[in-house]
Amino acid sequence: MPQTPHVEQHFTAGESVRDIVIGMSDGLTVPFALAAGLSGAVSSTGIIVTAGLAEIAAGSIAMGLGGYLAARSDAEHYASERKREEAEVREKPAVEAEEVTEVFRAYGLTAEESAPVVDALRKQPEAWVDFMMRFELGLEKPDPRRALTSALTIAGAYVAGGFIPLAPYIVLSTAQAALSLSVLVTLVALTVFGYVKGRFTGAPPVRGALQTALIGGLAAAAAFAIARAIS
Amino acid sequence: MPQTPHVEQHFTAGESVRDIVIGMSDGLTVPFALAAGLSGAVSSTGIIVTAGLAEIAAGSIAMGLGGYLAARSDAEHYASERKREEAEVREKPAVEAEEVTEVFRAYGLTAEESAPVVDALRKQPEAWVDFMMRFELGLEKPDPRRALTSALTIAGAYVAGGFIPLAPYIVLSTAQAALSLSVLVTLVALTVFGYVKGRFTGAPPVRGALQTALIGGLAAAAAFAIARAIS
Repeated sequence: MPQTPHVEQHFTAGESVRDIVIGMSDGLTVPFALAAGLSGAVSSTGIIVTAGLAEIAAGSIAMGLGGYLAARSDAEHYASERKREEAEVREKPAVEAEEVTEVFRAYGLTAEESAPVVDALRKQPEAWVDFMMRFELGLEKPDPRRALTSALTIAGAYVAGGFIPLAPYIVLSTAQAALSLSVLVTLVALTVFGYVKGRFTGAPPVRGALQTALIGGLAAAAAFAIARAIS
Repeated sequence: MPQTPHVEQHFTAGESVRDIVIGMSDGLTVPFALAAGLSGAVSSTGIIVTAGLAEIAAGSIAMGLGGYLAARSDAEHYASERKREEAEVREKPAVEAEEVTEVFRAYGLTAEESAPVVDALRKQPEAWVDFMMRFELGLEKPDPRRALTSALTIAGAYVAGGFIPLAPYIVLSTAQAALSLSVLVTLVALTVFGYVKGRFTGAPPVRGALQTALIGGLAAAAAFAIARAIS
């Protein structure tokens, strides 16, 4: 599908960064909060490491495989909608031409003003279908190689993120000492991660840093309170 | 921002369903896999329930609050890009007019064919900015009320999903018996959920059912194997 170079660039760079951000923010947050929560209930780190590793395995598979299948569904959805548009362009060109006019009417253009574009598209059915996919349905053509790359990136980022809060529990033997170190290490990691994420996504980096630290802190505090209350 | 009725309808219905799907698929999968994993390492359900509840708290906060802040960032990104487009339309109309021509050139239209649309947009700066946001940058105007609704929907669906695999561990006292019941209940829930999700998203329902059951089953098996290996 034709795109302006500007849009293409924006799209490609954003996808990989987005996958790392998605995987790593959950990977840093959920195993951290789970380990912190269990520290409120047990004193030995053994069971916390077991639960943490089980969570990292479950979370990375759920996010990675879930992301892979979602990307495949998007690709199939795009292909089936495209087939429908191709049939409509071929069989009911007058109706489709009216839909192009409608798209422009939403931007205050009269049928006369958009008529030359409508006529030009009618002469190129392939480009016309591309136009309808993007401007009527708002669908971007998915990159078929993205699904697998995306899945592996998200899962890898989740595992990498998850080992940061868990490392102190692996090294130390008492949960209390490991918890203090894990809170310190993870809040630093969340802050750095939020800052870098802000730089990449264009959001104010300092606010990004505070936000990711806040999410991690709140999740850990809630998990700790719940585990302490029921144990 | 003006949209065709078709696109608007597609967009609104999809968002709520998508939020429930996002929250519930992770809520069913991760606490299920964590509890199954711990069943490979401990025999009492007490610690599994504690870990499961801590995970549900952490996961729902991470997903809900994370989703809320992401939606707010999207809204701010849209607002800042819109300001930039407004300034460009005001200060460099010739450059922006050339960009409109470029958008159409990507669909095989000559400058002459798109000229009437370009001229018409130049007479309506507001609609012109709307046009650039969608057609050049590919950005949809976010609904400001969506952020909070979306966060609460995702978090609520995560909690609702998470209690299904955890319920057998709450009711029964031995991990082995609870695990068997949890596997049964959760695989049924994942299959029903995958089927319903397929109906809503337009994917083949039976394949949707098999896919969600597969993700949950694989995540749980991996968590179980890891916990068994290290305990």
